[in-house]
Amino acid sequence: MSQRPAPEAPARLTRWEQRTELPLFAASLLFLAGYAFRVLAPHDAQPWHDLSLILVWSTWLMFLADYAVRLRLSGLGARFVGVRWLDTLVLVLPLLRPLRMVKVYSAVQQRHDRPRLTLYARVMSYASLSAVLLGFSASLAVYRLEREAPGASIRTFGDAVWWACATLSTVGYGDAAPVTFWGRTVAAGLMACGLALLGAVTGSFSSWLIQVFTREDEKRPPERG
Amino acid sequence: MSQRPAPEAPARLTRWEQRTELPLFAASLLFLAGYAFRVLAPHDAQPWHDLSLILVWSTWLMFLADYAVRLRLSGLGARFVGVRWLDTLVLVLPLLRPLRMVKVYSAVQQRHDRPRLTLYARVMSYASLSAVLLGFSASLAVYRLEREAPGASIRTFGDAVWWACATLSTVGYGDAAPVTFWGRTVAAGLMACGLALLGAVTGSFSSWLIQVFTREDEKRPPERG
Amino acid sequence: MSQRPAPEAPARLTRWEQRTELPLFAASLLFLAGYAFRVLAPHDAQPWHDLSLILVWSTWLMFLADYAVRLRLSGLGARFVGVRWLDTLVLVLPLLRPLRMVKVYSAVQQRHDRPRLTLYARVMSYASLSAVLLGFSASLAVYRLEREAPGASIRTFGDAVWWACATLSTVGYGDAAPVTFWGRTVAAGLMACGLALLGAVTGSFSSWLIQVFTREDEKRPPERG
Amino acid sequence: MSQRPAPEAPARLTRWEQRTELPLFAASLLFLAGYAFRVLAPHDAQPWHDLSLILVWSTWLMFLADYAVRLRLSGLGARFVGVRWLDTLVLVLPLLRPLRMVKVYSAVQQRHDRPRLTLYARVMSYASLSAVLLGFSASLAVYRLEREAPGASIRTFGDAVWWACATLSTVGYGDAAPVTFWGRTVAAGLMACGLALLGAVTGSFSSWLIQVFTREDEKRPPERG
Repeated sequence: MSQRPAPEAPARLTRWEQRTELPLFAASLLFLAGYAFRVLAPHDAQPWHDLSLILVWSTWLMFLADYAVRLRLSGLGARFVGVRWLDTLVLVLPLLRPLRMVKVYSAVQQRHDRPRLTLYARVMSYASLSAVLLGFSASLAVYRLEREAPGASIRTFGDAVWWACATLSTVGYGDAAPVTFWGRTVAAGLMACGLALLGAVTGSFSSWLIQVFTREDEKRPPERG
Repeated sequence: MSQRPAPEAPARLTRWEQRTELPLFAASLLFLAGYAFRVLAPHDAQPWHDLSLILVWSTWLMFLADYAVRLRLSGLGARFVGVRWLDTLVLVLPLLRPLRMVKVYSAVQQRHDRPRLTLYARVMSYASLSAVLLGFSASLAVYRLEREAPGASIRTFGDAVWWACATLSTVGYGDAAPVTFWGRTVAAGLMACGLALLGAVTGSFSSWLIQVFTREDEKRPPERG
Repeated sequence: MSQRPAPEAPARLTRWEQRTELPLFAASLLFLAGYAFRVLAPHDAQPWHDLSLILVWSTWLMFLADYAVRLRLSGLGARFVGVRWLDTLVLVLPLLRPLRMVKVYSAVQQRHDRPRLTLYARVMSYASLSAVLLGFSASLAVYRLEREAPGASIRTFGDAVWWACATLSTVGYGDAAPVTFWGRTVAAGLMACGLALLGAVTGSFSSWLIQVFTREDEKRPPERG
Repeated sequence: MSQRPAPEAPARLTRWEQRTELPLFAASLLFLAGYAFRVLAPHDAQPWHDLSLILVWSTWLMFLADYAVRLRLSGLGARFVGVRWLDTLVLVLPLLRPLRMVKVYSAVQQRHDRPRLTLYARVMSYASLSAVLLGFSASLAVYRLEREAPGASIRTFGDAVWWACATLSTVGYGDAAPVTFWGRTVAAGLMACGLALLGAVTGSFSSWLIQVFTREDEKRPPERG
């Protein structure tokens, strides 16, 4: 979303992206599910553990293949890595991939031709869905990084989710907080993204509320007269 | 408020909703009072305890009856549950019902024909009133859920109110925080709603302040000339 | 500021308010200084302690006299208490009185005819000055209420100022937080007012930054051509 | 940025400032690097320690010389200190100097004639870069002030960076917080500046998101027809 396709984007690339959008989104949800299973399941659930490992790796290889095809079709060569930096980031950190759902959402809505939400409602629903997915991914990652650290305050997955809620809302009680280097790195990323997303929710809600009250004003005179 | 009545909303439904608005709002305040009494009163205040139990259940049955009538009048059948999801939510979590006061407020103002507040002042007063009611309901719920939990930091109702203030303002000292699963669930809900409401207060205040200063600018030249 | 003078405000009241604005503002600063001295000075600084007591009471009596005169001149009788609720509040809680400085500020600027700040700069400076005064008053009040409480984490005036900073910015580390009922009441008031003021600072800064960048855009083409 | 050059700014001063902009920015990065080395390196790395001391002082003397030249060229005499208060502040607290990068950024872009970012993207990138630099400087300063304080919770540079993240995002867990007077003073400064910058990032992101969704709306009808 934050990258406009470069003007010279060839038609074949655009067609490829339109066709693979939905399958890749499904794959990214599978990746998330596989990762969640690996983190949350007890270690001795052996057959399922191997299955989830296969799931995670095969979906990731699918992302890699898609990236390679797009690099090819774009005709940009190695410059593709920099021009499409968001795609590159999402390849390296596939937990962020479900955030691309906004494109899928509009694609789905176009087909079903349903009445659409208002502008602010769409911004709010997109930003809150992103925040929920982001918080869930960060909980998984922090739980995996922290659960065996000495002196950790995040010991169960419930603690991790509670920590993610307190962090995304910037409340920050401090009863659960990461103590390891990588846990804190994930937390800093969550703060940065989360703040912006939450700010968008808050701002849209505020604008929407003002709009609702303004409309009510306009409706009133006829009711009275 | 966040649901526009579906275009096919029959006139009888609209009339029913206009007539029951005020009685239902009074009932929702009674419900809140009864719930507050049940949570806050000592357990051995027997006759009153039974009375408040009756109050809570009878008001809730009234909400249920109203919901059934509206489901009937709408002519939507089971689809009503989804189309009017906000009404359904408010039926399941009646502590949220007083938040509907905004409609009552405009209804009351229309009758008395009083000079109205400016747009920003109304948004501010609505959002802060909602935040106060929300915080009070959350304090009650969290106090009930936490007071007997082992290792809880919320031990008195005063602690619960203090926790709600610190959470709604996103300060989050952490000297009082829920430790049980359901307490944390309520807290997460309070964070989500509270943040949006507080953002609306803050945003409106900011817009209003800018408006005041702009007006002062316009007034000044004649004072000087 | 949040109360427009009622339309029937007689000319004599307006004149009285214009004339007493500056002396009353000076008195409110004296009140704050006297209060600060009473709270901060060691208890055995006897002659000064009595002096500050006299200062606090005499300035407050001055506010009371002014309130009485205005009540008289307004011709509203007892309704004055409600119509001018902000004046009433400021009489009961004189620590909030310095917040009225915005009127003094415009009065002073009109006389000196200095080049004025832009709109956003004025909103920012007014809101940050108010936040500083509010934080200072709250620090004084909380320090006085907490310093002798058992188990208090605010033990020195430095702690109280640090607590006020962390609260106003909604950071809320929790290393210093009030534990008494009245301390927490002051804190809740600080959160409510502080949040709105800080939101105004943040919002104005954001608007101002966008304005600066927009202007730079407009300046650029000639530089290039 | 927050000071428009006074209208009487002589052409020679403007030319001097344009020419010294880039060298001074490079010097300010050197200053930051030297300061960081002095704070972070072990004390017995003797030859390098002396070198970094020389670096810090020589760059600071360069800033002083530049200030003197500008004071001279401005023809304002001692009034320069007040009129250009931001320059004076940056001379006294040179860790804040890298924040001037926004001017350098536009200067560089003008030369390379690259396609420019949109308005919101520029505000966001400027504000987040400033926040990162500010957080890094504050981490260095707080780490130096706190590391030997008794009872400090900031004991490593990692703790200081983690504290700066939690403070800038207003999360404030409280697991790391300054305890000394000067550490808390730096923290209060970080809160004040950081809040405004972060508010600008959040606000711009929100506006940008709404813009993106609005554009998508406009694009849709042709896609459908």
